[in-house]
Amino acid sequence: MSTFGDHFRVTTYGESHCRSVGCIVDGVPPGMELTEEDIQPQMTRRRPGQSNITTPRDEKDRVLIQSGTEFGVTLGTPIGMVVLNQDQRPKDYGNKTMDLYPRPSHADWTYLEKYGVKASSGGGRSSARETIGRVAAGAIAEKYLRLAYGVEIVAFTSSVGSCHLYPPTAAHPSPSTNPEFLSLLQSIDRKTVDNYLPVRCPDEAASKKMVDYISDFKEREDSIGGTVTCVIRNVPSGLGEPCFDKLEAKLAHAMLSIPATKGFEIGSGFGGCEVPGSIHNDAFVAAADSELPASVLESGAARSGVSRPRLTTKTNYSGGIQGGISNGAPIYFRVGFKPAATIGQEQRTATYDGGSEGVLAAKGRHDPCVVPRAVPIVEAMAALVVMDAVLAQQARHTAKSLLPPLKQTINSGMPAGNGVTEAAL
Amino acid sequence: MSTFGDHFRVTTYGESHCRSVGCIVDGVPPGMELTEEDIQPQMTRRRPGQSNITTPRDEKDRVLIQSGTEFGVTLGTPIGMVVLNQDQRPKDYGNKTMDLYPRPSHADWTYLEKYGVKASSGGGRSSARETIGRVAAGAIAEKYLRLAYGVEIVAFTSSVGSCHLYPPTAAHPSPSTNPEFLSLLQSIDRKTVDNYLPVRCPDEAASKKMVDYISDFKEREDSIGGTVTCVIRNVPSGLGEPCFDKLEAKLAHAMLSIPATKGFEIGSGFGGCEVPGSIHNDAFVAAADSELPASVLESGAARSGVSRPRLTTKTNYSGGIQGGISNGAPIYFRVGFKPAATIGQEQRTATYDGGSEGVLAAKGRHDPCVVPRAVPIVEAMAALVVMDAVLAQQARHTAKSLLPPLKQTINSGMPAGNGVTEAAL
Amino acid sequence: MSTFGDHFRVTTYGESHCRSVGCIVDGVPPGMELTEEDIQPQMTRRRPGQSNITTPRDEKDRVLIQSGTEFGVTLGTPIGMVVLNQDQRPKDYGNKTMDLYPRPSHADWTYLEKYGVKASSGGGRSSARETIGRVAAGAIAEKYLRLAYGVEIVAFTSSVGSCHLYPPTAAHPSPSTNPEFLSLLQSIDRKTVDNYLPVRCPDEAASKKMVDYISDFKEREDSIGGTVTCVIRNVPSGLGEPCFDKLEAKLAHAMLSIPATKGFEIGSGFGGCEVPGSIHNDAFVAAADSELPASVLESGAARSGVSRPRLTTKTNYSGGIQGGISNGAPIYFRVGFKPAATIGQEQRTATYDGGSEGVLAAKGRHDPCVVPRAVPIVEAMAALVVMDAVLAQQARHTAKSLLPPLKQTINSGMPAGNGVTEAAL
Amino acid sequence: MSTFGDHFRVTTYGESHCRSVGCIVDGVPPGMELTEEDIQPQMTRRRPGQSNITTPRDEKDRVLIQSGTEFGVTLGTPIGMVVLNQDQRPKDYGNKTMDLYPRPSHADWTYLEKYGVKASSGGGRSSARETIGRVAAGAIAEKYLRLAYGVEIVAFTSSVGSCHLYPPTAAHPSPSTNPEFLSLLQSIDRKTVDNYLPVRCPDEAASKKMVDYISDFKEREDSIGGTVTCVIRNVPSGLGEPCFDKLEAKLAHAMLSIPATKGFEIGSGFGGCEVPGSIHNDAFVAAADSELPASVLESGAARSGVSRPRLTTKTNYSGGIQGGISNGAPIYFRVGFKPAATIGQEQRTATYDGGSEGVLAAKGRHDPCVVPRAVPIVEAMAALVVMDAVLAQQARHTAKSLLPPLKQTINSGMPAGNGVTEAAL
Repeated sequence: MSTFGDHFRVTTYGESHCRSVGCIVDGVPPGMELTEEDIQPQMTRRRPGQSNITTPRDEKDRVLIQSGTEFGVTLGTPIGMVVLNQDQRPKDYGNKTMDLYPRPSHADWTYLEKYGVKASSGGGRSSARETIGRVAAGAIAEKYLRLAYGVEIVAFTSSVGSCHLYPPTAAHPSPSTNPEFLSLLQSIDRKTVDNYLPVRCPDEAASKKMVDYISDFKEREDSIGGTVTCVIRNVPSGLGEPCFDKLEAKLAHAMLSIPATKGFEIGSGFGGCEVPGSIHNDAFVAAADSELPASVLESGAARSGVSRPRLTTKTNYSGGIQGGISNGAPIYFRVGFKPAATIGQEQRTATYDGGSEGVLAAKGRHDPCVVPRAVPIVEAMAALVVMDAVLAQQARHTAKSLLPPLKQTINSGMPAGNGVTEAAL
Repeated sequence: MSTFGDHFRVTTYGESHCRSVGCIVDGVPPGMELTEEDIQPQMTRRRPGQSNITTPRDEKDRVLIQSGTEFGVTLGTPIGMVVLNQDQRPKDYGNKTMDLYPRPSHADWTYLEKYGVKASSGGGRSSARETIGRVAAGAIAEKYLRLAYGVEIVAFTSSVGSCHLYPPTAAHPSPSTNPEFLSLLQSIDRKTVDNYLPVRCPDEAASKKMVDYISDFKEREDSIGGTVTCVIRNVPSGLGEPCFDKLEAKLAHAMLSIPATKGFEIGSGFGGCEVPGSIHNDAFVAAADSELPASVLESGAARSGVSRPRLTTKTNYSGGIQGGISNGAPIYFRVGFKPAATIGQEQRTATYDGGSEGVLAAKGRHDPCVVPRAVPIVEAMAALVVMDAVLAQQARHTAKSLLPPLKQTINSGMPAGNGVTEAAL
Repeated sequence: MSTFGDHFRVTTYGESHCRSVGCIVDGVPPGMELTEEDIQPQMTRRRPGQSNITTPRDEKDRVLIQSGTEFGVTLGTPIGMVVLNQDQRPKDYGNKTMDLYPRPSHADWTYLEKYGVKASSGGGRSSARETIGRVAAGAIAEKYLRLAYGVEIVAFTSSVGSCHLYPPTAAHPSPSTNPEFLSLLQSIDRKTVDNYLPVRCPDEAASKKMVDYISDFKEREDSIGGTVTCVIRNVPSGLGEPCFDKLEAKLAHAMLSIPATKGFEIGSGFGGCEVPGSIHNDAFVAAADSELPASVLESGAARSGVSRPRLTTKTNYSGGIQGGISNGAPIYFRVGFKPAATIGQEQRTATYDGGSEGVLAAKGRHDPCVVPRAVPIVEAMAALVVMDAVLAQQARHTAKSLLPPLKQTINSGMPAGNGVTEAAL
Repeated sequence: MSTFGDHFRVTTYGESHCRSVGCIVDGVPPGMELTEEDIQPQMTRRRPGQSNITTPRDEKDRVLIQSGTEFGVTLGTPIGMVVLNQDQRPKDYGNKTMDLYPRPSHADWTYLEKYGVKASSGGGRSSARETIGRVAAGAIAEKYLRLAYGVEIVAFTSSVGSCHLYPPTAAHPSPSTNPEFLSLLQSIDRKTVDNYLPVRCPDEAASKKMVDYISDFKEREDSIGGTVTCVIRNVPSGLGEPCFDKLEAKLAHAMLSIPATKGFEIGSGFGGCEVPGSIHNDAFVAAADSELPASVLESGAARSGVSRPRLTTKTNYSGGIQGGISNGAPIYFRVGFKPAATIGQEQRTATYDGGSEGVLAAKGRHDPCVVPRAVPIVEAMAALVVMDAVLAQQARHTAKSLLPPLKQTINSGMPAGNGVTEAAL
């Protein structure tokens, strides 16, 4: 199904060559100021054509809110959003060989196996245009999370091919222990990331190297993959479910649903699997309130007296999630993107009917590297996951708050008067 | 919510110290022979106490089917399953420091933040016992997939700490290009994997090295992580949804929902992000029917004349999934597990109330490495994902089959008489 | 949430005064011919302004398919549909008293209680315009059901106020035993129903009486309710789930979700609660294949050799559903609609703030009786329920068909060779 | 699927003759005192064998909590509950004719059509024992609703066959206008209802008449249906969704999912369809706080300062729900139950294979009238619906509360300073 989320639910529609693409967002809190100006910036960041190393199509992608707001305020009802399809040039895809040969590693063949029919453009819905609805919905989630909790979500390109922002070193086999990386997670913002367009890797040297690297692939009509790292700051603690819907499981689901993704790591990730538990365990320390950033201090939660967690961790191998539930520390993760399947080079492959092999020459205009454009999509999907978990947790917390206090603290090992709330067994 | 799957839906219950753990499995096809003997083997493989490097608790874990079958045949109604909790020794956890200090990197703290109460054993539902219901449900899914399609799901330990079954080499930076690895994926079975107990790494040398490696951590009352690789063979093509519920997204969700997981890679994974598209693209070739294994030839699908895909791929960087949909090639993925959080060593950390720091000494009996026991859990979750996708696709395929043939082939670029079904536009 | 259905899933958006209303339909089988011409007729039947006893607004309501089809054939991907809002005259509602007083029995007050904000038109989403998306989605479901199984869904006005098409008599306290009623259920079609516009009650005398009755209410600026009866013919047997999602439970859910509904009865309904079981039980008889209508004989199911049930029932108090599951007999049910809340008469009621009582005078143009316009909405919701159940059952049936035959018939009381399939225990 | 609810989710399992029946309840708020003593009373009320007019089976039905609580307090994790099956005497059903003939109006035939297999007892899951899990889950929901809001849910038998507690009269064609009925709704409690066992009709004369009436049917080995009326008092306003999941739609779904139900009416119901809008509309009046009952004053909501609605209605034709959303007035509805299908009389019907007609003689011990035992089931399902809606609304309300105040009141028609919150546009 084309639906994501249980409490904040996004349903998308649209292929490359249809009238429009769009989505319906259900579960938006009522009473929030919201206009297209809140949504367009991320739409524009997602848009191709932002530099000469991305595809030259100028899609415009103006989002139009259809419903769910009045006088610029959300009503609590579903928000329909539409982006018209323009400048699609379906003929680009309609060459002879593309009708005969399914493109290797593209969705042409599997869609046909699945549906028994296929769109003229091949995979159709596997087009990157499908992500427009996600980015629009994510922008709404983000606005709420920022207003209510001061949540900040920032993604950036952390590698292109073998060029890494933080290549593994003897001292830091995984970036999780690298103070430079950890410091970047604390401070990076989108404006800074976009200063490093077209690659969105927030480092002068790495960025320059990546630009050259990609240009090289573009010249050879080839493609290359890379990774996006994303940090979510100021997440409330307590988000995520203990079993199947652990917060990292939902993030993994969300990220692997983005076209062309191959992997997901939370916190220390695969590198952390090689670190002894005695080092990898994140010891607790008392949290220092003075460090709260402005976005948190000005949030609705702060105004409403929602208390911040009493504890934080010395290290953050966990990536802000323990036992599937957020602990209030920054959540960070990395997403791997494969090289784009559609390339200009000739490819030798079989025809749809398996009868013969031949040469497929793609003629479309395609990104040599999709990673920089994936940055706002990663941010959007992260926002959708966190928003859904926030609404679930708000319900649980409010439900509990209406219960009478327990008559006794039960877990007798815990000394009385230790400052833990009466309900803490 | 404690529910997984849309069409084949598992709901689990249970913590470490309650009466029983179990699950309800809804959507099991009717008319399948099923008794506890079909389920117990994977329960036993999951069970701790299988060797001196896993925890010595002898939990027995006998599964009891409560409903949904009669005379050993499934009725199509929900199957309730229960495993009684025995030999739990709650006192093991009840020492004084464990009541004062949340265990670092465990779920104690986040559960308290989430629920405002906590089980005496800390995270409670974050216990590995929660996975019992998953394994029981997975065994049912597996049986169906085997009978209906000849699907084979086999997982094994691919690394422990820095000991890798296929360490990266200059020639093969990622195992995806290593012929030894690819050949192993084609042939590995569970019996072979269990010949290499206690580590379940199907290689004499690597296995021995891992045993020594883990023993070393055990001695130091420390823990270490590792990775599990899983292959799913003979998957029908066409499984998975094009957008949010891509097959790899559901697999990622499923795997990251297993306790202690840190990462997921499908096919070439993160390594594939560094390979040029011109190499990474999996060219199509005609499939050779003669190669079908016995499990497929004897399956219900074969009996029913369900045709196998006409095409396969020369290479399999994609890991059997393209555009979110299975292409019939083996699906393989890797899951990273962190070192277990509970260790025997003393740990310096803060009290629940943040008032002071002190020393927490865990006294429970714990696995120094959870990876070998995770093998059947990974298999179970993989089975649940594939089973859910199979039911979804069966509905779609059957729905289509009742429609009248289209009056024309529409995508005129495709020559007539090319063997593609009339519906293939 | 604004979503209906698990397998055939409709999500709607839109209020009275926003840019457009519409929906996304997910789960549409691929390979079905579908254009706006398939959808518009029901949209037009739903449209106000069809006669002088319904509201004079001319909303046009042209549906535009946005996605999910190409060259007039469904792709299997979500179908987005949009209907622009025109001629809405928001000022009609903006009079002074309507801002001060919540309209009695309307959604103005409860929406404000729910959301803390309200649309300028009061309930906003409670507007009948919200049903546009449902009708559009229902038309797609209907087309599939007709092509695949020959399903026919026809609703009609069965009462307006105290004017009943089949008033209770001594001989027939409930229409379920009335041969005239049962014969009408067998033959009624939409064309006939629309011959009795504006009330859509397919009987000359009753129709005329109802027209006069409604005109009387219109004159007095009052409103009146009524009932719609709906029959679904040629439904496959086996639809519906045994427990929470019984087919009649889903129908009840669907019907009570239509604005202004007050009750739902399946088959003999409330009247049947007064009939002894010995009479009410529907005895089985062998089904006569010769009676199959053309729509069934030409359906995909017939072409595919899907067999019709071996049995049918002598009577049909059950309304085609037993134990929550369809038995192949006609499904029929009745839905009650209250008098429309918005009336032209003055009403004495309290202000929003409860401070004072006064007089609210509605000025909008409103239906004195919504029942005739509800007819296509009832049909649409019925189609959505049946379609969802069909997809669920197709998956189950196909899943079973791939299992090996059972080694024995188990329920030994059943004699061998009785023609029941081997799997029938 | 055997799952009910989105936020408070119940999944049940079990047939008549399996090891146990039970359920898993997910979404229970943490920190609530809960033991089996809270659940058993309703289990016992549901149990057969409470008098000589219900079935003499003594099923005991002791509920055992498996998980989700510790030291008598909910943990917030899923609560597994099990009730063992005893004294089932499967042979009772195993007579020769029952294997040959599907019982008329029972689920035997449709289950076989659906699943291709059937339980030896016929419909299996269509047994009334399946409702045990619902009643157990409902008891948990009820406890929360009472503690948090003072909600009271009471159902009673309102008719058996043609014996009505409030038969229609010239003055009161529908009980909604009958002051006696409305006064009963305000005061009735379960203790009073059970004073009128075995029929649970809270009126001396009507009760006596019903007992005689049922005995008559019992003697003739026949069965008879009836209706249950249910009232839900002290429901918070704002519950229910505006579109598909209107509160009455969920109630209808819940009620029609109870075995043997034929109809559902909310508020004035079908009778209300014959009342002019000018009378049927429920005018608003200021609510009088002094009237709050003790259960509300002592509730968590009262302690937390959650304000009660400012308005109430003079009449209550709406049954407490307007536009699909609760308005704070008592919710009341009526559910119709058909005569039980299994009767002792001989019935002439066809064999499973349609080959011949013959006589089926049922030998089981069965209720001549299921209505009195349905009373706690109706209460349970009502509790599940309200609880689910409460959690949804708590999330929405809390989400809104963290947003900044709007900069202006927007709907200019509303005078400033009218006491409506700033957010009320």
